[in-house]
Amino acid sequence: MNRNFHLTILGSNSAVPAYGRFPTSQVLRIHDHLFLIDCGEGTQIRMGQYRIKRNNIEHIFISHMHGDHLYGLPGLITSMSLNGRSHPLRIYGPPGIREYLDTVFRLSYAYLQFELQIIEFEADALHVLLDANDVRVSAFPVSHRVTCHGFLFEEKLPEKNLRKDKLKQYRLTIEEMKLVKKGGDIIREGVTISNKELTHETAEALSYAFCADSLPDRKILEYIKSVSALYFETTYLDDMSGQAHERGHSTVSQAAQIASEAGAGLLITGHYSSRYRELEVFKEEAEKIFNPVILGHDGEMVDINGLMNRLH
Amino acid sequence: MNRNFHLTILGSNSAVPAYGRFPTSQVLRIHDHLFLIDCGEGTQIRMGQYRIKRNNIEHIFISHMHGDHLYGLPGLITSMSLNGRSHPLRIYGPPGIREYLDTVFRLSYAYLQFELQIIEFEADALHVLLDANDVRVSAFPVSHRVTCHGFLFEEKLPEKNLRKDKLKQYRLTIEEMKLVKKGGDIIREGVTISNKELTHETAEALSYAFCADSLPDRKILEYIKSVSALYFETTYLDDMSGQAHERGHSTVSQAAQIASEAGAGLLITGHYSSRYRELEVFKEEAEKIFNPVILGHDGEMVDINGLMNRLH
Repeated sequence: MNRNFHLTILGSNSAVPAYGRFPTSQVLRIHDHLFLIDCGEGTQIRMGQYRIKRNNIEHIFISHMHGDHLYGLPGLITSMSLNGRSHPLRIYGPPGIREYLDTVFRLSYAYLQFELQIIEFEADALHVLLDANDVRVSAFPVSHRVTCHGFLFEEKLPEKNLRKDKLKQYRLTIEEMKLVKKGGDIIREGVTISNKELTHETAEALSYAFCADSLPDRKILEYIKSVSALYFETTYLDDMSGQAHERGHSTVSQAAQIASEAGAGLLITGHYSSRYRELEVFKEEAEKIFNPVILGHDGEMVDINGLMNRLH
Repeated sequence: MNRNFHLTILGSNSAVPAYGRFPTSQVLRIHDHLFLIDCGEGTQIRMGQYRIKRNNIEHIFISHMHGDHLYGLPGLITSMSLNGRSHPLRIYGPPGIREYLDTVFRLSYAYLQFELQIIEFEADALHVLLDANDVRVSAFPVSHRVTCHGFLFEEKLPEKNLRKDKLKQYRLTIEEMKLVKKGGDIIREGVTISNKELTHETAEALSYAFCADSLPDRKILEYIKSVSALYFETTYLDDMSGQAHERGHSTVSQAAQIASEAGAGLLITGHYSSRYRELEVFKEEAEKIFNPVILGHDGEMVDINGLMNRLH
């Protein structure tokens, strides 16, 4: 298994692109999977610039139907077709995304050479969208002005290797061996033999949660608890908390507070208002509350696997 | 009158953006008017980069309903609204453009703060879209796979000044004076007194024709005769003339031939296939047939007024 787990930020601005920042879009690589999260205008252009092969994208996850998370889809998808894609593309998004794509493609004479699978969904709790052998992707509700979902990407590691000496020592049954391989502890007559003692040390499974756009709603905490890396939208600095609230957004301190309460491994910021030319102060405000903070910006590649190894 | 007449190319590539080239989009300034011609994905981003104020755009002209000329509209228009536009915006385009915008805005919850005036039209001959006191804009049919129009932008100069000595010498009547001010000649008993003799020398009115996407159809010549500057699409080099024909496009030599037969003042190339990384050979092939040639590319500003003054 090729243990990739890294995020590339294609667009880090909010609605109106500014100062070289495009609207929201991220590419997440987990092992051999390549996922696109949101698709603001210019996503396909960023992919060209950052050398991400458009046709390696397996699935696309759209958080909500605001244009700055969506308007890049038609161009990206038609380019995939013009570039010879023949394998299916699956898009997960809120109700309305099918009509959006169908109408745009019909009126712009776009005939795709591959199968476009559109999955419309609405989740009011954690909702598994995809469960492969090495990764699970779930959606969960966040709090914005319109129906909006966050996404949780969880790595699934291969079964654990039993230590032969322990297997002998405890004379594990076949049932117990199965349980231990999956990560469970053994309990014999009320005494726990920990999984850690019975198995060779392996890496911890990594996870990434994407939360945009959203108020700093504490209901979200249950879905993102102990996530390795958390992206939480930071449209404004602290002094704009009134406007943030009014528009269904968060300030960077609020996002840091969420990261702290969730016990996240690291926080990635983004979705900056176009009122801000310089971003450094976002990092400063966040770091008063939480550490480590990665100032997300277009072109930033976050090696979540590498960072987690260094942090532990 | 501020005699601006210049073109800024925002996107010079064909369907799939490549090598730093965005899909088709151009901004034309004539005097105090700012027109946008086509609006491929990323147009609003280019405007930010090239310091063109989005809300100074008065009218938008869309040649046809293919995505690479169109997919930038929703993002640009919503950004105009978010940036506080309150004056109307008029969009001229082929049938379908209203349904496209209405559907996209409805599904993406976009509520514009200004009036969007959409004029759908189909022209089978020269068709005046806009006739202001200092500029006229007309559409004309070109030959593509779907309904597609070229656009002719003609500067209208103030009335000519009569020479007082000639007015005395010929004792012009009021009717004759009106005619001469508008540029006409006088005919008296079969003898022509030329407008040139009767008036002070003034600049020639400038014009710009935009022809994309199209086959090198000679029917177009009548609409673009003696145009100051001609943009004609040059998707391919000469060795791809078969594919160009099949897809309703032109090679650069074919475009140069059209420019030559039209008696254009200069040719601007563009809409390059993403198979080409380097463009210099487009200029070389064109210059075998026509001169001068401007190799259109993203960010190029063509001062048509200045160039025409130097060429004469």
